[in-house]
Amino acid sequence: MRPIQASIRAHGDDPGGDGAVSPAEYREAMAFWASGVAVLAARDDDHVEAITVAAFSPLSVDPPLVLVCVGNDAAVLYVMEDAGRFTLNILAAEDRRAASAFAQRMPPEPSRFDEGDPVLRGSLVALVCRLTETHPGGDHRIVVGQVERVVTGTEADPLLYFNREYRTLG
Amino acid sequence: MRPIQASIRAHGDDPGGDGAVSPAEYREAMAFWASGVAVLAARDDDHVEAITVAAFSPLSVDPPLVLVCVGNDAAVLYVMEDAGRFTLNILAAEDRRAASAFAQRMPPEPSRFDEGDPVLRGSLVALVCRLTETHPGGDHRIVVGQVERVVTGTEADPLLYFNREYRTLG
Repeated sequence: MRPIQASIRAHGDDPGGDGAVSPAEYREAMAFWASGVAVLAARDDDHVEAITVAAFSPLSVDPPLVLVCVGNDAAVLYVMEDAGRFTLNILAAEDRRAASAFAQRMPPEPSRFDEGDPVLRGSLVALVCRLTETHPGGDHRIVVGQVERVVTGTEADPLLYFNREYRTLG
Repeated sequence: MRPIQASIRAHGDDPGGDGAVSPAEYREAMAFWASGVAVLAARDDDHVEAITVAAFSPLSVDPPLVLVCVGNDAAVLYVMEDAGRFTLNILAAEDRRAASAFAQRMPPEPSRFDEGDPVLRGSLVALVCRLTETHPGGDHRIVVGQVERVVTGTEADPLLYFNREYRTLG
């Protein structure tokens, strides 16, 4: 048990506020949402652009759709849109080094991506997707993809992200 | 370490396939994505409609937006759309009973929801949202909300969902 510092105020407690949740309050609230960790990758000719993401969700079973939220100015967004494709690689607990590397846009060498769709070797599973739609969402975009291929990898526990730290399952 | 049965085939291994990932393959792939667990609730006059969800994601910091994926025929979707509001209650590890109850649409009695916006007492945090947009997404809808108020609750570890089971942090 790791207690979380309860430093978030309800807006009603903030008489001097401007009627909105501040970026700091928002980030603190989102820290309570646990998730897996994935490397989102898209290929631009011989270059793979990739970032670490946690803002992913299953969307639809039939057709098989997923979504991922990508910052409006993330380089990977343009590559995904140009290519019309992306691959979402779900990381294993042992792979927090890859998570940190791609979060800082310093991918490990040599490349761990397959030729063609950028399947990351060593991930739990890779979802190879055709980009079907994007929707504006404030400072991010909602990118929807149809899963065209599922590549199963390592049998292991997942890497988790909670309260701004990498964690593992109990 | 709980190894996962690697029963997913890449589509390329399926020469008799129809070119799409089947619902069974999709569900097996999504089982690799770990997440928190939340009770999504909306109020219709004196009635609260609520379901257990895992398909939630932070979306935008400024403005403060979140999204949740809701089945096209879920009762809560209509209530959310009518009310123009919803509350996303992130569950604590101790609260898997509530998760099971709301997953079966048999909420515990007496009601654990506050008056007004349906904040679930005992949750880690509740995000009180104004519904700003919905987008079609296959058999689900993407529901976007602006976080208007954050209500911090229990200090505890989160409830997790992975490989079709409730789990906790390590």
